[in-house]
This record gives sequence, structure tokens and C-alpha cells, in this order.
Amino acid sequence: MSDSVDYRPMWESLGLDLAAHDMLLAAIPQMYTDAFLTQKDRPEGMAYFDFVMSEIHGLRIKELVDHKAAGGKVIGTFCLYVPEEIIRALGGVAVGLCAGAEWAYDEVEQILPRNTCALIKSFMGFKMGKVCPYVESADLVIGETTCDGKKKAYELFGEMAPVHVMELPQMKRPDDMKLWRAEIDRLVAKLEEVTGNKLTAENLAKGIQEVNDKRRALQHLNAARKASPAPISGKDALLAVQVAFYDDVPRFTQMVNKLADELEARVAAGTGVAPVGAPRVLVTGSPMSIPNWKLPDIIEKAGGVVVTEELCTGSRYYEKLVAEDASSMDAMLDDIAEKYLDINCACFTPNPGRIDDVIRLAKEYNADGILHYALQFCGPYTIEAYSVDKAAQDAGIPVLRVDTDYSMEDVGQLQTRIEAFLEMLEKPAVSA
Amino acid sequence: MSDSVDYRPMWESLGLDLAAHDMLLAAIPQMYTDAFLTQKDRPEGMAYFDFVMSEIHGLRIKELVDHKAAGGKVIGTFCLYVPEEIIRALGGVAVGLCAGAEWAYDEVEQILPRNTCALIKSFMGFKMGKVCPYVESADLVIGETTCDGKKKAYELFGEMAPVHVMELPQMKRPDDMKLWRAEIDRLVAKLEEVTGNKLTAENLAKGIQEVNDKRRALQHLNAARKASPAPISGKDALLAVQVAFYDDVPRFTQMVNKLADELEARVAAGTGVAPVGAPRVLVTGSPMSIPNWKLPDIIEKAGGVVVTEELCTGSRYYEKLVAEDASSMDAMLDDIAEKYLDINCACFTPNPGRIDDVIRLAKEYNADGILHYALQFCGPYTIEAYSVDKAAQDAGIPVLRVDTDYSMEDVGQLQTRIEAFLEMLEKPAVSA
Repeated sequence: MSDSVDYRPMWESLGLDLAAHDMLLAAIPQMYTDAFLTQKDRPEGMAYFDFVMSEIHGLRIKELVDHKAAGGKVIGTFCLYVPEEIIRALGGVAVGLCAGAEWAYDEVEQILPRNTCALIKSFMGFKMGKVCPYVESADLVIGETTCDGKKKAYELFGEMAPVHVMELPQMKRPDDMKLWRAEIDRLVAKLEEVTGNKLTAENLAKGIQEVNDKRRALQHLNAARKASPAPISGKDALLAVQVAFYDDVPRFTQMVNKLADELEARVAAGTGVAPVGAPRVLVTGSPMSIPNWKLPDIIEKAGGVVVTEELCTGSRYYEKLVAEDASSMDAMLDDIAEKYLDINCACFTPNPGRIDDVIRLAKEYNADGILHYALQFCGPYTIEAYSVDKAAQDAGIPVLRVDTDYSMEDVGQLQTRIEAFLEMLEKPAVSA
Repeated sequence: MSDSVDYRPMWESLGLDLAAHDMLLAAIPQMYTDAFLTQKDRPEGMAYFDFVMSEIHGLRIKELVDHKAAGGKVIGTFCLYVPEEIIRALGGVAVGLCAGAEWAYDEVEQILPRNTCALIKSFMGFKMGKVCPYVESADLVIGETTCDGKKKAYELFGEMAPVHVMELPQMKRPDDMKLWRAEIDRLVAKLEEVTGNKLTAENLAKGIQEVNDKRRALQHLNAARKASPAPISGKDALLAVQVAFYDDVPRFTQMVNKLADELEARVAAGTGVAPVGAPRVLVTGSPMSIPNWKLPDIIEKAGGVVVTEELCTGSRYYEKLVAEDASSMDAMLDDIAEKYLDINCACFTPNPGRIDDVIRLAKEYNADGILHYALQFCGPYTIEAYSVDKAAQDAGIPVLRVDTDYSMEDVGQLQTRIEAFLEMLEKPAVSA
């Protein structure tokens, strides 16, 4: 965090618990240094992300506060299914909410069961502990019914903050699309009420284009990861998607495109972050929120390289775009509904699209193995792991299944398991 | 199990694992004797249920096999939301599937996470272990999307048996009703295909009336439990609802009405199963399938009496009826959709109806305390417990929260907690 500006009055005005927040801020830089700044041969473009991370509770919050002072609204989200296009069209700024570290679990476990997944306990803890400046800046938090835990936790969260819950259907048939399309209309109405602005074909087209550009930039960046040696670490690529949930959209797009250009040059020059032959890993499963870098950190410190993520903080975020050829607002909203319902979350039944995505990405990115990562007590992903595993076996791709949380207690055990897995993935010609 | 008839050839023809099934059948009678036959002052009408239980894998299965031999179909269900009216109208017999005991968990945990709720592990275990003659008799199993665990487990169950999954929405607004109403149409189409019969206003009206009569009989029985002393134990009343999922409908209705008449006479005579002043307990939470009698057994052996159950195996099953005044088939299906969506499962968000039901029932049945029972890892009920607890506190009703499974490992600890709770509920005038 920058030393030059005193953000404490701003945090205080947002209602943060300053003493607790200091403790949080004291922990993150060391974690970040250990995970990111110790990496060798990083792309220069990552300097931007180092800066963003150093200012994630500082300068970026200042920008949100300024946006609010100018009459704009801040909309907090926890999930990929909330259309940022509409929020931006109405002059809102969408921000992901803090959910990637253990915080105030003692308080959380007074209202939620202990065996709730870490993501949910974390977002409740950050709110109850008053240490997340994003949620405290939010004029509205948008929830969704993607899993039992979130669905029911939002009821309790709603007692602490203004919450609007979108009902995501559980299948993808025409009747589900009707329900979902109606949810989009309800979201528009709610956001028009909160922002005081009116959705138009013009502002929506702009919102669609800006968010598509952001996703295109991430596609651009990620395409370079197909090369061997990988031009960027999995940790750095993950960080880019994590930051996509928080950062100013046009600036982020510009910086990611710049980084992607650099990666293309690295690929052309044969420059990588890991030797050719380092085991290439696809990670799939539950989302990874900042600062949850635990698993890619273990994989890459053990000599592997994560080449793609079939995650909400990965390909699910950037692979699909909203169509840009609609001329009426209604048609644009149809396109938005379609793009979002097309995301393959394990909350759908059945969910063959995700299995296909995993196998397709593993081939496109030349992954030697798949690491299936699930948060403990995340029912949808822990159960779907079985089907992913089976499909991968059929495709001849080794899978390691890891169920974990945000604690560091199992790091030693995970290191051992992951090292053994990577060893198995090493090609004889390379290990000789 | 009756000794006079050899059902083994029948079980074998259904594909049961006879050796494993023998082990299961050897365990149940002792459990049943301990829980039910040791009770004092039982209503005479319970003799019917003793008989039904002794023949639950025998005579009743014979009836199903005969039904199938005559061209009828057997439809397995796991959930209250599957409309039995439609199944009956099409000449099918609806049966609940085995899900109340630990079975073949070793096999189950090879495909499902260990931390899946006992109900789900149980139904998968009974199928994988081939010991449930109901599921083996079923021509179709109907699943639903009521929770993450079931929703995703049905995908795997569907590889072992023919499964049709109904999408239950997660809210109860008009758009949700539209989706649900379309699900009812899809169910009709599927059942028409499986049974080879055609739904008509006549057979549907009959189905509605028969199932309503069953529910009215259970209302009749349960109304008597408002009296003090309670004329029937909670265990016996629970058993009646559990058997409602399996038994022949008109016969069951007749026997329950007979039992209810007896209870009315007992109430008039002041005859009870527990002394006046015994702590009266309302049980609410996750469903209790046969032979899951663990909690009411502990409560009643500790001197309490369960007077009502806000459970799927309780008031949620029998309190609401399908309207009987519709004249067209479409209108009847509307009424069915409405009745079923009106059930207050914790899978809905928000779910104030259940909280209201719990408090209302506690008052109607003069409950001294509420026992909130949740299966471990049952997200919806474990999380909603917080809201139930809060509402009960506001209403001045003590609550004990119990999260457990089907094992007997925690019985000692539960006994201690429940005894302490009952002691707290005892009225000074009585305990003096």
C-alpha cells in the first residue's frame, strides 16, 4: 500500500474498522511478495498489476469515492452471472467484493454453519468485520442463486447491506431462458431505481462494447499461454482476471492489451517463465478470489506452470462475448441474457458444457494434467469433480483432485500431493 | 419381516443383492422394536403400521410387482414436490425411495464427497448396494432441483436408473410459477410416455381426490395431537407420514382415519402417551426417512413428547390440499402447480413462510420448545436454522439446534443435550 497518501480518513468515512483493517493490510503485502514478486522472468507489463494491488484499498477506493461524489453509484457483485454491461450503461461501477481470505470467522460462525465454503464465510466475514472498502462503498450488492450456500447466506447478508438477488435457473432450456430474461428486466428496473438513470440503446451498446473489449483483452492475453514455454505464469494470468472484477474498465483493457502484446513478443522470442517441458497444468473448479493464490502458487513453486483456468476467475469470465449487432435495447438485453446463461457453472444440471470446456481447453493449451480444485463444502464443484475426472480419464489426461479452503494448514500436504502429480506428468524425454 | 412367505425369489428377480439385503433386513426389526414396540399406551391403530413395517420389503413389494405384472408402472420419488396426483391419474403407483440409513457408504464415497448429507449418501448407497426393492421396482425415478447435493447427485444416479429431473424454481414469484407450471406439463408428458396412459380430467380429478383424502386423514390424525396429554407419540405420528410415501393410498387413508378416530376418543377420555406436563416439542428441519427415527426416539425416551413436525415428513406433507373445484384438466394442473409451489422448503429464498409455519404450529400445538434438526451438510436447513432460531426467540420459544446424520456415534452426546433442553422446558408447577 502506498505510503505517500493517508487513506485512513477515507476508510474511516466508509465505516471501516480501522484497527482490524490495518491488520488486514499488514498481511497482504507479504503474501503478495511471496507469491508474485519472487517470480523470475516476469513480463514487464505485470508492473501495472503490482501497482493496482498496492493500491487496491487505496487509489481504487478513492476513485470509487470520487465517482460517488460525482453522483455515480457503486454496485457490488459476487458472481459472473451479474451483467456488468447493464451496470456500466447506467453509470454504475461494478466491483467484485472481498471473498478470498479467512476473516472474522468467529463472528461468521455465529450465524453460518462452520461447514460453509470458504468463499461464503469470507464475504460474510469481510462484511461483519468491516474491512472491505468495496462492500462499504457499494450502493447495492447483487446476489444470485447459484448455490445453496450463497442463496441462503444472502438472506443474512441482506440484513447488513442492501441486496438484490437474481434468480439464476438451474437448467438451460427455453423456459429457463424466459425466467432468466425476466430476471435481467428486473435487474434493469432495480439499477435504474438505484442509479436514477435510464437504460437506452445507446448507453447499453457502449456498456456492451466496453465489457467485450475487456474480455477480448483477456482473450488476447490468454491466447499467448498456449505457447511453450509459457510466456506468463498462471499466477500472473489469474491475477489479471481477478483484477478485472475491480479495476477501471477502459484502463484495465488498455493495460491488458499492452501486456498481451508483450506476451506475443515473448512467444516469438521463445522467452518463458518456466522451462520447455515444465508440466503444464489446467486448473478447473471453484472460483479463486483475491488473495486466494494458494493453489497456483504451490503448483508453480513445485516446478509446474498453470497454462489455463476453467474457472469463474478464468475462461468462464472472458471466453464468451455479448453479440454486438443488436439494434434495439430489447435485442441487446436478449443477447446479454443469452451470453450469461451460456456460462457453464456447476450449478446447472446437467452441465456437459463445462466438461467439454475442460477437455477442449486442456487440448488447446497442451495441458499435461488437470488439477480439479474445489472449495470444501462447495457441493456443485465437489460433486461435479467426479464427471470431470471421468471425462479426463477417457481423454487420457491425468487429474488431481484437491478440496481445500483458505487456511494454510494443509499447504504441506498439498505440496506433497502436487509435487507427486507433477512428477507423474513430466515427459520422459524432458526429465532425462 | 413375515416368516410365512418366502420373498427371496421376488427380491432376486428384482435384482437385489440377496446377501446384503439379508443383512439390512436383519437390522431393521431390532431398531423398530427398540423405538416403537417398547412404547407404553400406544393407540391400537398402530398395529396396522407395525404390520406395514414388518412387510415393507415383503407384501408391499409383492403388490408393486403384481401392479407391474398387470401393466401398471411404479414411479420412485425422493421429494414432496413430485405430484402424486398425476402419477396416480396415469395408473402409476408412487413410492418414496429408501434414504434413511447408512448403507454402502464406502461405494458412495467413491463418487460423492464424504461431506454430502446423509439423505443423499443413503439413497445412492441403497441403489449402489442393490438393497432397495422400491428403487429396483421403479420404472422411472423423479428427481428435483431442491438442493445442490440432490441436483448434482441425480446426474450420477441417472447413470444407474432412468431419472427425470423436475426443475423447482428458487423463488415463488409469477415468473417462477410459469416455469414450475411448465415443469408440471413436462412431467405429464414424461409420465404419459412411461405409463402409456393419457391424462384426462376424469382420472386427474380422481387422483386429486385420493391424494387429498390421504392428506385429510393425516390432518385428522395430527389435529388430535394438539391435546394434552398427547394421545400419540411423535414417533408413531412420524411413522404414519413416513408410511404415507409407500403405502397403498385408499387403504392407508382408511387406516389413518381409523387411528385418528381412536385418537379423538383418547383425547375425550384424557388418555395419553406421556403425562400432562411432559415437555411438548415441535421438530422442524430436514426430512426424516424410514428408518431415521433417531431424534424423536431420543426426545421421547428422555421424557419429552413430540407434538408436531414442521418437516417434509410432517406438516409440509399434509397441511395443504389441491383445490377440488376445477372442471378442466388444465385448471387442475394449475391447482396442482399452485399447491406444490406453496410448500415452504428451505430451498426457496427468501422463505418466510416456513418461519411463520414453525411459529404458528408451535402455538397451535402448545409446544414448549422447538428442536431444529438439520442433516449435516444440508446447506438450506443448516443456514435457515439461524432465522428460525431468531423468530422463535422473538416469540419466546426456546430452541435447540441439532445437526446430525444417520450414525449412532453422537447419540450419547445428543441424549445429554436433549435431556438438558427438556429439563429447561419443564414448567415449575410440574417439576415441583
